[in-house]
Amino acid sequence: MRFSNNDRAKVLIEALPSIKKYSGKTVVIKYGGNAMISEELKDAVMGDIVLLALIGIRVVLVHGGGPDISNTIKTMGKETKFINGLRVTDAETAEIVEMVLCGKVNKGLVNIIGNKGGKAVGISGVDGQLLKATFIDKELGFVGEVSEVNIELVENILDSGYIPVISTIACDDDGNIFNINADTAAAKIAIALKAEALISMTDIVGLLRDRYDTDSLIKVVEASEVQGLIDDEIVTGGMIPKVGCCVDAVNNGVKKVFIIDGRMPHSILVELLTDEGIGTMFVKELEK
Amino acid sequence: MRFSNNDRAKVLIEALPSIKKYSGKTVVIKYGGNAMISEELKDAVMGDIVLLALIGIRVVLVHGGGPDISNTIKTMGKETKFINGLRVTDAETAEIVEMVLCGKVNKGLVNIIGNKGGKAVGISGVDGQLLKATFIDKELGFVGEVSEVNIELVENILDSGYIPVISTIACDDDGNIFNINADTAAAKIAIALKAEALISMTDIVGLLRDRYDTDSLIKVVEASEVQGLIDDEIVTGGMIPKVGCCVDAVNNGVKKVFIIDGRMPHSILVELLTDEGIGTMFVKELEK
Amino acid sequence: MRFSNNDRAKVLIEALPSIKKYSGKTVVIKYGGNAMISEELKDAVMGDIVLLALIGIRVVLVHGGGPDISNTIKTMGKETKFINGLRVTDAETAEIVEMVLCGKVNKGLVNIIGNKGGKAVGISGVDGQLLKATFIDKELGFVGEVSEVNIELVENILDSGYIPVISTIACDDDGNIFNINADTAAAKIAIALKAEALISMTDIVGLLRDRYDTDSLIKVVEASEVQGLIDDEIVTGGMIPKVGCCVDAVNNGVKKVFIIDGRMPHSILVELLTDEGIGTMFVKELEK
Amino acid sequence: MRFSNNDRAKVLIEALPSIKKYSGKTVVIKYGGNAMISEELKDAVMGDIVLLALIGIRVVLVHGGGPDISNTIKTMGKETKFINGLRVTDAETAEIVEMVLCGKVNKGLVNIIGNKGGKAVGISGVDGQLLKATFIDKELGFVGEVSEVNIELVENILDSGYIPVISTIACDDDGNIFNINADTAAAKIAIALKAEALISMTDIVGLLRDRYDTDSLIKVVEASEVQGLIDDEIVTGGMIPKVGCCVDAVNNGVKKVFIIDGRMPHSILVELLTDEGIGTMFVKELEK
Amino acid sequence: MRFSNNDRAKVLIEALPSIKKYSGKTVVIKYGGNAMISEELKDAVMGDIVLLALIGIRVVLVHGGGPDISNTIKTMGKETKFINGLRVTDAETAEIVEMVLCGKVNKGLVNIIGNKGGKAVGISGVDGQLLKATFIDKELGFVGEVSEVNIELVENILDSGYIPVISTIACDDDGNIFNINADTAAAKIAIALKAEALISMTDIVGLLRDRYDTDSLIKVVEASEVQGLIDDEIVTGGMIPKVGCCVDAVNNGVKKVFIIDGRMPHSILVELLTDEGIGTMFVKELEK
Amino acid sequence: MRFSNNDRAKVLIEALPSIKKYSGKTVVIKYGGNAMISEELKDAVMGDIVLLALIGIRVVLVHGGGPDISNTIKTMGKETKFINGLRVTDAETAEIVEMVLCGKVNKGLVNIIGNKGGKAVGISGVDGQLLKATFIDKELGFVGEVSEVNIELVENILDSGYIPVISTIACDDDGNIFNINADTAAAKIAIALKAEALISMTDIVGLLRDRYDTDSLIKVVEASEVQGLIDDEIVTGGMIPKVGCCVDAVNNGVKKVFIIDGRMPHSILVELLTDEGIGTMFVKELEK
Repeated sequence: MRFSNNDRAKVLIEALPSIKKYSGKTVVIKYGGNAMISEELKDAVMGDIVLLALIGIRVVLVHGGGPDISNTIKTMGKETKFINGLRVTDAETAEIVEMVLCGKVNKGLVNIIGNKGGKAVGISGVDGQLLKATFIDKELGFVGEVSEVNIELVENILDSGYIPVISTIACDDDGNIFNINADTAAAKIAIALKAEALISMTDIVGLLRDRYDTDSLIKVVEASEVQGLIDDEIVTGGMIPKVGCCVDAVNNGVKKVFIIDGRMPHSILVELLTDEGIGTMFVKELEK
Repeated sequence: MRFSNNDRAKVLIEALPSIKKYSGKTVVIKYGGNAMISEELKDAVMGDIVLLALIGIRVVLVHGGGPDISNTIKTMGKETKFINGLRVTDAETAEIVEMVLCGKVNKGLVNIIGNKGGKAVGISGVDGQLLKATFIDKELGFVGEVSEVNIELVENILDSGYIPVISTIACDDDGNIFNINADTAAAKIAIALKAEALISMTDIVGLLRDRYDTDSLIKVVEASEVQGLIDDEIVTGGMIPKVGCCVDAVNNGVKKVFIIDGRMPHSILVELLTDEGIGTMFVKELEK
Repeated sequence: MRFSNNDRAKVLIEALPSIKKYSGKTVVIKYGGNAMISEELKDAVMGDIVLLALIGIRVVLVHGGGPDISNTIKTMGKETKFINGLRVTDAETAEIVEMVLCGKVNKGLVNIIGNKGGKAVGISGVDGQLLKATFIDKELGFVGEVSEVNIELVENILDSGYIPVISTIACDDDGNIFNINADTAAAKIAIALKAEALISMTDIVGLLRDRYDTDSLIKVVEASEVQGLIDDEIVTGGMIPKVGCCVDAVNNGVKKVFIIDGRMPHSILVELLTDEGIGTMFVKELEK
Repeated sequence: MRFSNNDRAKVLIEALPSIKKYSGKTVVIKYGGNAMISEELKDAVMGDIVLLALIGIRVVLVHGGGPDISNTIKTMGKETKFINGLRVTDAETAEIVEMVLCGKVNKGLVNIIGNKGGKAVGISGVDGQLLKATFIDKELGFVGEVSEVNIELVENILDSGYIPVISTIACDDDGNIFNINADTAAAKIAIALKAEALISMTDIVGLLRDRYDTDSLIKVVEASEVQGLIDDEIVTGGMIPKVGCCVDAVNNGVKKVFIIDGRMPHSILVELLTDEGIGTMFVKELEK
Repeated sequence: MRFSNNDRAKVLIEALPSIKKYSGKTVVIKYGGNAMISEELKDAVMGDIVLLALIGIRVVLVHGGGPDISNTIKTMGKETKFINGLRVTDAETAEIVEMVLCGKVNKGLVNIIGNKGGKAVGISGVDGQLLKATFIDKELGFVGEVSEVNIELVENILDSGYIPVISTIACDDDGNIFNINADTAAAKIAIALKAEALISMTDIVGLLRDRYDTDSLIKVVEASEVQGLIDDEIVTGGMIPKVGCCVDAVNNGVKKVFIIDGRMPHSILVELLTDEGIGTMFVKELEK
Repeated sequence: MRFSNNDRAKVLIEALPSIKKYSGKTVVIKYGGNAMISEELKDAVMGDIVLLALIGIRVVLVHGGGPDISNTIKTMGKETKFINGLRVTDAETAEIVEMVLCGKVNKGLVNIIGNKGGKAVGISGVDGQLLKATFIDKELGFVGEVSEVNIELVENILDSGYIPVISTIACDDDGNIFNINADTAAAKIAIALKAEALISMTDIVGLLRDRYDTDSLIKVVEASEVQGLIDDEIVTGGMIPKVGCCVDAVNNGVKKVFIIDGRMPHSILVELLTDEGIGTMFVKELEK
């Protein structure tokens, strides 16, 4: 469909209240997994981010590695070991993850943003010791739990007008580099930034009461309702820790957390700049 | 027509290059005359201005009085004198113009901007002695010619994040207050601000080669072509001084001047944020 | 009388402790009514204000309309309606007030300040939504009660070295513009600015114990004494709300409020820069 | 004479144009010799300086030692040597001068300013290596010629709102400390500060055409006229180098240099803040 | 050897003139190749860099990949193609280089600096579009020639007190990512920063007149002498482009360029903070 | 002994943790008495101070007068009076002290710092009314007790990158100038600055358990232990008030106070930049 100029103007002017609501505020976007799979989608997401930055939102992009990590591990002939069914991230694997995240994925995203007219700086949890971590379990190798967030560098980057693009690795005082879960990292960073919103781009449409019916989408969840949703098996499996991060964020000062479908083009814009939410929003408590 | 969220996102993302082009730049908008006549239109124009300000454009609004001036003059029982066919602005008339411009129109526009979520400050050429003037012809009374522009106050207002809304009166060192032509004032202010663009909202669609054929719209005019257009009677009558202001602006550092149809809703947005110009653009010289 | 240079120097040097006391502090001056009646007086008051600004005092001028308002209403053929003896400010009247205050009076004062070498910006309660109001009583029309003061704009103007000159109208979220009592507005603004002093220029010499004896001037009043003065009928009629504003100010952080005789030339200078107060000073409590 | 409040206000308001002229500008005052002799006079001069600083003038005080130096030399039992009639400043004498200037005189002046409510910092040409010098003639000992002025420290002090009080000694790269003529030092500092005015407080009323007739005071001298005044023996003896400093200053960017009679109380205020000059003013060229 | 406290103090105090010389100045250090080979050496170099940063030098670290690149290429089973004897950097190879440089090496260096108490940010030529490039020869693949340096991001990082650690890849407007020679990149960055010094850490002791005699070290080379050194075959082979970068730098505003032996521990400190240079220094022209 | 470049680098790199510990922190150094006696020593101490300033420590030097004071008093033929065995500081003596401290000693130290490449400003307690005092006992004359510390000026000087060098005299509101004990003044200034460390340079090696055995040096003292040391006669005589100042400082926010032997060259550097303390350190409480 081709829009008339008049249509365009109308759409822009209708976005005004939303733009006003977020202008000058900090929004952390967690981007990873299947939402990252196609180049077209990546392109669309980066376009959205540049737009948000241009209209005055302080956007922070926290990314995971998506399918690139396992592909590279395979190419390099590494075999994955398991202990009691849990993947072991040995030193070599950790290094591959670091290379893919900080080298390929991070610079790739920064490059797209640059070409779309945005200004981005790709950093990691090691830069400015942004994320410090401890071992979760030494048996499992270099997988860390965030123990400290030094947000100064991220704020410097935002203040000087750049978009921080953050790879989720972390460091400690002994020189170790850890792989960190991107959802956790994004939540911790959003908390440290006192963000207005954290948007988690996933490959689901949101929380569904009936998993086979997208019309059963739960639009808003208060933090206190989550345990019930787990008990009712509406939140299950891998969604439990993800939702845990959302709750952690809203309980620690982030105003709103959105789980949205990253596979839908421009889902961030739709969520932030139109009047109709498309995923599930978590809040500490609904305003009455 | 009702847009889908997807449509909205598409429109927003297509505006990206335009937003980027003007972000951080100064745009002076001259608003007056018939473009000011309906409250709906005024409302739409102020909405556009708030949007432009929110996406990072340094917007300056220079306004005339529109039909309010003659209405008030009539209500107050003043009769207009003429000398050789030219209207005489005696002290009383000048005071009425001042009251309507700075009191009613200016505060009215500021009020609408405020209610749309923008932050505006209404000033006049007397504030901070922004515009100083001399008599054009003492016989004609308090109609002035701009002799000096002190742009500091306007820059302060822009720097602190407000939209300056400017009434076109001026002062001199003897305590006189002059009525100033709004087109001239806007051009002088745009020059002093080294503006990226000056947009003159009028009640014509632009310059037409054939006055009865809107398809004959002249999209771009180089400064050097203007004399030819006058000679060919394409630019005539009241348009000659208006076009003169446009040429003055582009010849003194303003990058682009647009004459657009203020009666069309959201014509500013269409001109600045879509790929298709709708009026006539003046430039010093086309880039090759 | 003509002063010798020596005299002049002596006077200046004797003003030193007073200058030092107010330097860098904020002083709000409420100017209106009969103190505004002659051009000579207006000129003298603006001269005083420029001097205060030059010696480092952050001066804010809040003005009413004086006799100009009723004159203009009369000229425009408006008749004033009354409900139960109270004047009704209908939409038309409100607009006339707005025009006279923001157009004629405000720009007139700004112009004089400019010509005396000061730098002023004339704004109103609508600019930057400085004053928000609600209807006192819808029957009475557009007369408002201040519900919110957004002082940021005034502080920006002071910080950039200009004198804010404020017309006392206000806005609300529905686009209404209200007429506001200048004494109330000045008090609210002084409170929001945490002003060192609020000076109310009136046409009385101050509070008198014996109304026919100017020697019975009450020089200092503590907030707690006011009710007694009302009970004793020393404060009566129109002075009751005026004095109420003074008490409101000192009870909310303004250090001192002066009621001085604006008809006396240079009364502000005499009050602030000489050792002898000339009107009545209100304080929360006398320092012991 | 006792002034009425009205008189006081009049005087203050008449000072307005002068205050405006110097507000924000830099004025260097050279103070020394007999103008320094009585405590009352010293007190009056420091009062003037505090007033000037309070009304926004960037005042710099450069002082000599006055009679204290020779008194202290005598007390310490030093005898002054002469070579070809010129006083020799040996190491010991230089040290006494340094102590008297930087210790007694400087701190004494700073102390008075502080007690009058001003904020002063007493420094010397050695601090921040403000003045660097070379030997004029090694035979004459530690008397230096200014070779370099590092004005940064003085500007820092002014910018942070303090009055710099400067003792005229200087340093070199070999650790020597020199005695410097205060007139020369003041001129060099005024030039480096691009001062609006340099005021030299002396014990004469100014240049007189007829030395026995104070009515023959020369009010204004253009730089080019000075040689004529020397040829006509109007400028003679010790005045020749003093006048040389004045000419040096106006020829190098200082707008005006005044020689005024420091023995007259408040002569600085009279010169700067009244319409009637009292001494001799040097300019590069009169404005036409 | 164990130093006495006295010895330590002496050494520190002897470093004073050198510290003073470089304090507040920008020094670009190019680090790569064999100087990077051992962990001990890397550790020592990062320690030096932290020390330089702490004593107020604005240090910028530009690194190559060293042996890690070819190791990873081998591990990933890539075979290197050659065209006319020149290595071809196809898309896959470019990506591996990117991952090793920006992922492994960059974050490794940043991590060491962090653990030594320094504050570093690892970026690449893609971040903030620091380095833009064009293809040298499309046949050779993604090897670029620097066409543009946008130094703003590096200056922001320095201004906020961090050490920029830069991987030498570059971008263009078409989304390509190029591999860039680290010597060239370091020179271009040093020029854009108007650096005081560029230090190239190599695995030679400097330029030798007699290649078998380290006593024949050439301590200083003026830009104009380089062609002679090439003609005399003192500069040969791979040293020719390296020396070309040095000459480019000094000819474009970098004060001094040092080629020093990176295999010697603390060679940077010795070069900058002791009185005895250890490598070869290039200058535009010797000061006379 | 002559150090190799390698040695030098090693020493520098070993100082890294200490430099890091104090970088950006404030250190007050009290310098006086016998530590001031030789020019070589003075030179060494000033060198240390310049080095500390260059590596980013905010150094404040508080000095006494050393032997210069009594020498000058003698030269000027003053006789010292005693009342009940206590020296009387009459007006004349106070003035001599002022001259020696602020004139000779202060400017002498500032001059050495300047020649070593540091930037110093010599001030006194009178400048900016840094130290205000009251009479201890009018009989004893102009010896004061510090009643107020106005630290703003010292912080301004530090912020603009200069080293404040402070003479310990003080003022009051009546124009008196007092002589102040340098240990007390240094402690009060360190407290007002919330200094990281106060270093008192004396002519003892520190507190000794056995006064004839330097091996009995007490390395660390907690504030609460001091009374015991006095009871045990380990702290006696003139050391009691000195140690009192140390305790006062650590009890009021200064982290550490060191008493070190100023006669040992570079003792400050050794104390701050090596791992081995050389004197006695006072802390409020040892960290556990």
